[in-house]
Parts: sequence; structure tokens; C-alpha cells
Amino acid sequence: MQTIQVGLNSRSYPIYIGNGLIANADLVLPLLAQPHVAIITNEIVAPLYLDPLVRFFTKNGVRTHTLALPDGEANKDWSTLNRIFDFLLTNRCERKTTLIALGGGVIGDLTGFAAATYLRGVPFIQIPTTLLAQVDSSVGGKTGINHPLGKNMIGAFYQPKLVLTDTDTLRTLPDKEISAGLAEIIKYGLIRDLPFFVWLEENISLLRQRDAAALAYAISQSCQNKAEVVMADEREGGVRALLNLGHTFGHAIEAGLGFGTWLHGEAVAAGTILAATVSLRMKLISEQDLARIKDIYQKAGLPIKAPNLGKDKYLELMGSDKKVEGGKMRFILLKNIGAAFVSSEVPQQLLVDLLSAP
Amino acid sequence: MQTIQVGLNSRSYPIYIGNGLIANADLVLPLLAQPHVAIITNEIVAPLYLDPLVRFFTKNGVRTHTLALPDGEANKDWSTLNRIFDFLLTNRCERKTTLIALGGGVIGDLTGFAAATYLRGVPFIQIPTTLLAQVDSSVGGKTGINHPLGKNMIGAFYQPKLVLTDTDTLRTLPDKEISAGLAEIIKYGLIRDLPFFVWLEENISLLRQRDAAALAYAISQSCQNKAEVVMADEREGGVRALLNLGHTFGHAIEAGLGFGTWLHGEAVAAGTILAATVSLRMKLISEQDLARIKDIYQKAGLPIKAPNLGKDKYLELMGSDKKVEGGKMRFILLKNIGAAFVSSEVPQQLLVDLLSAP
Repeated sequence: MQTIQVGLNSRSYPIYIGNGLIANADLVLPLLAQPHVAIITNEIVAPLYLDPLVRFFTKNGVRTHTLALPDGEANKDWSTLNRIFDFLLTNRCERKTTLIALGGGVIGDLTGFAAATYLRGVPFIQIPTTLLAQVDSSVGGKTGINHPLGKNMIGAFYQPKLVLTDTDTLRTLPDKEISAGLAEIIKYGLIRDLPFFVWLEENISLLRQRDAAALAYAISQSCQNKAEVVMADEREGGVRALLNLGHTFGHAIEAGLGFGTWLHGEAVAAGTILAATVSLRMKLISEQDLARIKDIYQKAGLPIKAPNLGKDKYLELMGSDKKVEGGKMRFILLKNIGAAFVSSEVPQQLLVDLLSAP
Repeated sequence: MQTIQVGLNSRSYPIYIGNGLIANADLVLPLLAQPHVAIITNEIVAPLYLDPLVRFFTKNGVRTHTLALPDGEANKDWSTLNRIFDFLLTNRCERKTTLIALGGGVIGDLTGFAAATYLRGVPFIQIPTTLLAQVDSSVGGKTGINHPLGKNMIGAFYQPKLVLTDTDTLRTLPDKEISAGLAEIIKYGLIRDLPFFVWLEENISLLRQRDAAALAYAISQSCQNKAEVVMADEREGGVRALLNLGHTFGHAIEAGLGFGTWLHGEAVAAGTILAATVSLRMKLISEQDLARIKDIYQKAGLPIKAPNLGKDKYLELMGSDKKVEGGKMRFILLKNIGAAFVSSEVPQQLLVDLLSAP
């Protein structure tokens, strides 16, 4: 088992990465403020992993309440969040009852936001069951829901007490979801870790074949990279913005097609290719660099061509992105593979040309 | 003008108390991260105070967007909160746009919660226009909305950058609202400040006549008392619970009658009499103490008799209060006038008897 400590100003917490952690969740027990947990999961994950977790708690004298929500990004909205509040209130969950998110990014974001706001804040533990959630939403404390006018528009920064990453859960994950997780893993290499990017180029097929050791290494490297960035900038004032490589375009793709049509990781992959293309046209990276980036995403089983939403739709959706400042659009661009930076200097015409034929 | 500094661990902010502060809101200007504010108010306050505030900003080159919501506790819910999100998104408010709450406690709680969660947190300024908001919700950073199953069940601790208390706004406040504010003011005397309680006994008629100097003194003493408590205990782990004197009963009254039927301050007054009656029956305070407490609330124009909801309804509503811990009900009781404490030892039979004939 590997442990990564995410040390934030406001609070520090550990991420445990290993196999068999759900059925033997001993690491969770010392953190419970009272022997009562509310587990939020979804209808896909529940039949696979809810029972062993509940059995573990029951055996250890911890009372459980469970709620299985419908799966998918389309449910990351207020009405689903309200189902969680109803569930917590109906079961008289208290300020010291711990909320546990058992599932992917949607369950993590919903449950984390519920924990941040139920009774103005209750303890929260994450058990991410998708590769994407294990390498992304488990670090950094971003929680929230979507709004018809934009993704993740409503939320809070709220840190879990602990993250339990059981790599066994990856065995049952659909191929598409493995690929979506790889999109974010590749991103860490691209923005700040050239040696990791090179390692990924060499091991991408092994990862798609779910080699346990390769996946565990990729997860811990990703969490370590994200933790370093987040520790330097918890509230997204500066360097943390680099984590959004491909996300301004990606969010527009997700919103434009309707949330849930493409997986988040798929949208980020196509969005990253757009950001890399901007970097090429601004003469920051070379044709060869762009080819390497397309190649690894393709080998990861991800789309490298963004859908044609029409440039006006793209620009409109990107204009309402959270990273807009003073009316100016900010982009994360690449100087090199392994080095990203923030730019507000992308010429409008370049964008218009790119998005007219993405 | 008086200034009280509320120094919390996470952030420190000033409360300015004086007259004419809305039309000359210079104190706000240095705090704006960009020259753009979104002002949330209600339909009662808007015709009185919105224009001078907007004029002030316009004169100083600050762009304003304004939203006037319907008045009243019944609107402190998700659907009204969502109107704020729609308004902010439609007007492309950004992470550095400051949200300003211009109104009473409902507007402050809604706007504060919107500020805490819009784009995961934007700057927030309070301009409280009711006596209750000036002495209560302006200190402590509690924000949130009601849920059909309980008051303030969903929310966040979120501190404003600044509170601007313009005592001129009290001139237009209905008598009922002045009394509701006095309920909380009296509470500070009861829980921790005997000299202030004695001063209030002597000046209660002056306060009801809206004597400007008396009101300014009562507001600053109240804010000072609350700030001291909150500074000692920002997240409500211990001593802050004392501020809830009368609130466990009071919330049950508000929920039982339907939010908005009684003003919060009215419910707190009747709830405090219930808490004082419990204190008497547990032989903590004397008959004379209870008589003094009833007397001052009565002179403040407040109800001293709680409505008869039926004991079962009371107990059910109180059981879902946020202050429940380990299934046990906790009460704030009085040892003396000027000294409150937390107790989980109130005999069930005493409660049943009291609430059968409140």
C-alpha cells in the first residue's frame, strides 16, 4: 500500500492506495467522530462494492445508512443533491456523522458538496472507484454541482478526512472509463512532469491492459503531482490553474453536447489537443510535440478530434467558464511537453479559425 | 462611527456602525477586487436604499447588477437561491465580482451562501438593514437556507470582507422588526453580560423609541459580545453554542407554525422564556430571575408565551435540530442572568410537562 499525504494549510489528509482496502477499511475507523456513517453511492457501484463496505462497518459496530443514486454526470445537479439532503435529514444524520462517497467523480463531487453544506459542514471520506476519480477529484477538495448554464458552477472547496483508493475497483471498470482516467493522468505529465510523460508513452498499453503495478504507479504519480500543485495553491489563485489544461475547451464540449454525452476525460482529451494546437499555432511547441500528444491520447483510446459545435457556440460556452477574468479568456498553453503556463494573450482570430474547424 | 474588528482564524474583517454609510460607502471601495458588484436585496428594501447605493457605485466607476427578491423567511429556500445563481451567471459575474447583501437576515443568509458556493466562493459584503441582522447575522459567518425538514439545515460558514451597518435604516423599520432585533440584543445580556442586561432593563423604552445613540450603543455591545464568542469558537465546537439560547425551542416554533409566520426574533423570545422556565424548574435560577426576563421581553414588545404546537410536534421538531449529538438533545440553560451553559441533562419528563402546556 502507498500513502500520499496531502498537506493543505487548512487541513492535512492521507490518500491510501492499495488493493483490498474496501473490505478491510480499518484505516477509516480511527477517524469516525461517532460510530455512524452515511454512504452515498450509485446504482452501478452499489451491487459491486457497497455490501463488503457495509459488512465491514457492521462487524466493527458502526451504524450505516446507504443511498444509491442514478449514475452519470447528468445527475450532478441540485435535484440529486437534494435527495442526499432528504436522506441525511430523514435518517437524522448529525454534525459528527461521517459522509462517505463510494463511486466516481460525480458521487465524489455531490457527496463532498453535501458534506460541505449539510448542517454547514460534516466530516467526509472519499472511496473513489473510477480511475478518473482516483487521480483527479480525490486530491484538491473541489466539490460541486452543475448548473444549466455551466459545469461545476456551484460548489465549495472542502477537504476529505481521508481518501481510500482500492485499486481492485479498476477490474470492473468499463474500458471507456479506464481511458477517461488516462486522459487526466497524461495531463500531469504534460503540464509539469516530462519523465512521467515519457514513462506513460512507454507503458500506455500496459495501463490499458490494467496491469496492477503500472496502474498503482500511475495513480500515485498523478496524486503526487496534483498534491504538489494544490499544496502550492489551495484556492486556485495561481499555479493550480495549470491543472485545467484542456478544461476550458473540454467544459465547452461537455456543455455543448449536453452533460453526460461525452465522459469528462474524453472531453478533456479532445480539449487538450485543441490547447496543444493553439500552442503550436502560437509557435510555442513543434509539430512533433503535437504529434506525440495526439499519439499518446489515441493509444489511450481517447478522442483526439473535438466535435464541431460551431465557433459561436464554443465561444459563448467558453466565455462563461469560471476561469474568465476581467472579461478576458485565459488559456492553459504548453511551452514544452512537461511545462504549461497561463496565457490571456491568445488572438481572437486564432480561436475563431480553430473553432470553425476543430 | 464605531468599528468592531472581528478577528477570526481564517480571516479578519471590520464592522462599521454609523449613520449615512450607504450613501457614502467609501469604506467598501478599497476591498473590491474588480470594479463590479452584484447587489442582492429584497422588494421592501430596494425602493428605500438600493438607489443611493447604486448611485454611489456608479459615481465611483463601479459597475452594478441588482436583484430584488421577494421578502420573508419563507423565501430562504433553494428556489430563491437558484434565482441568485441564475442572475449571477446571466450577468457573467466572475470570481472577483463582489456580492453585496443589502437587507435583513434572510437576504444576508441567502447572499452569503450564494457567495460561499458560486464558482466555489466569491467575495462578499454585508449591508444589514434590520436591527436583527445588524446584531446577529452580521457577525459569525453563518450562511444558509432552510429545508422543509428544518431551518438552516443547508449552509456554510463564510465570512464577509466587511459589514456596513447604517443605523439610518432603522428609521424605516416596522416596530415588529425593532422588537425582533431587541430579542437577540437581550440574549447577549442574558448569556454573558449582566451589566449590559441591566443597561437594557433601564433603556428598553428608549430603544423602542429608536433613540439613535441608545441603538448604536446596543448594536455595538451586541456585536462585541458576539464577536468575542465567535472568535473563541469559529466552527461552533463549544462556547458558541451559548448563542443559541432559546433557539432550539425557537426553531421548533418557527418550523411548527411554518417559516415566516412568526419573526425569528419573536420565536427566540418565546423560546428563551421556555429555556428560562426549564432553568427555573431545574432550580438553576429563581422565580425573580424568570420574572425579570419575562418583563424585559414584554417591554420589548415580544411574545413571552410559546404557541401550543402539542408536545409531540415540539419534540419531533427539536429532535432534528443541528445541536443534537449522539441522539441526545442539548439545551442552553441559565445559571444566572448573565451566565449560560450547555446541558444534555434536561429530564425528558420535565420537557414533556413543559411542552404539553407551554
